[in-house]
Amino acid sequence: MRIGELSARTGVPVPTIKFYLREGLVPSGERTSATQARYDDRHVDRLALVRVLVESAGLTIAQVKRVVDLLDDPPADTLDLLVGVQTATAEPAPPVDETLARALLGRWGWVVDDSCSGHVAALAAALDAVRTAGFDMPEGMIDEYARAMRSVAQAEIAALPTGSPEAAVRYTILGVVLFEPVLLALRRLAEADAVGARFGGPTASDVG
Amino acid sequence: MRIGELSARTGVPVPTIKFYLREGLVPSGERTSATQARYDDRHVDRLALVRVLVESAGLTIAQVKRVVDLLDDPPADTLDLLVGVQTATAEPAPPVDETLARALLGRWGWVVDDSCSGHVAALAAALDAVRTAGFDMPEGMIDEYARAMRSVAQAEIAALPTGSPEAAVRYTILGVVLFEPVLLALRRLAEADAVGARFGGPTASDVG
Repeated sequence: MRIGELSARTGVPVPTIKFYLREGLVPSGERTSATQARYDDRHVDRLALVRVLVESAGLTIAQVKRVVDLLDDPPADTLDLLVGVQTATAEPAPPVDETLARALLGRWGWVVDDSCSGHVAALAAALDAVRTAGFDMPEGMIDEYARAMRSVAQAEIAALPTGSPEAAVRYTILGVVLFEPVLLALRRLAEADAVGARFGGPTASDVG
Repeated sequence: MRIGELSARTGVPVPTIKFYLREGLVPSGERTSATQARYDDRHVDRLALVRVLVESAGLTIAQVKRVVDLLDDPPADTLDLLVGVQTATAEPAPPVDETLARALLGRWGWVVDDSCSGHVAALAAALDAVRTAGFDMPEGMIDEYARAMRSVAQAEIAALPTGSPEAAVRYTILGVVLFEPVLLALRRLAEADAVGARFGGPTASDVG
């Protein structure tokens, strides 16, 4: 199909498609003349993905580029794939002392591969921001967080499909990127529900 | 103290302090002449908070302004305070169909006050993005997310101090804003640990 039909099928305007082509987020079409190229269903799928990553997930163009590079040349190892996607979509953390973060991970027995050093830095920076604000996390809260995130992660990874590399890559990209806002929205709603339960107002009941 | 000493005590450069004053993030000092003003410890505390919100939490100036407005005139009701802080620091969600989000909240028995409509919209938008990407959340995953966020929220709200309004406001602001990056960093680390446990590599052990 021509670029006009690609635009019609995906709902992405032609100038936007041209921008994505220039940035390397969508592979070039098959050139049919000096000024025209032909596109196929792979371009439709890729455009749909790029659109979600840019518009819904709010990733920067540079982050989307790193994600599609992983899609085009996925690591064979599942941990490399996961950490690659996580790292591609993370903001780099400022360097701070990691002693507390590493002590916590050790206490929980979480295995931290060298490839996850960026995540350790992110945890250390997040804890440092709390401390810099002159604020102490209440006793036991960080352990509760760890328990909750461990349940979440185990459910997520248990559902990671293994039938095809494509499915694994797709699940990892969309799971890492698109589930995060779901989790954050749920936290806010759960906090409001818990405030109601503690401080009066409407009553709350338990999760099924 | 003069603005120079305020800068020295907080580590915030004078031009940045002047910018915060102009934007209303920090209250004016007591004017002592046409060109000078006097500042006190309340300015030191406020600058420390603004700095954390801007630099560590990455809030926009407009978001910080909404947060400090709540600090200067906090609602008496805890739910209003919590939802006010949550809303002040959230991105507005695009309007989408909320049927699924409301059905889930009903199934879990979560009480959703009218003031939380922005959070419901955020959940609906997050679920819509997953669907738009042509992706289904695995069966039961959303319930697992809800259970985990409920544990997190109950621990958070149980620790909300009630001794003074100032302490409650401070806990709410810092808890809502600064704990989120902690949670997200933990999710990524827990995912990596869970991948290692499922797909080989180093073994993982349980949370204490």
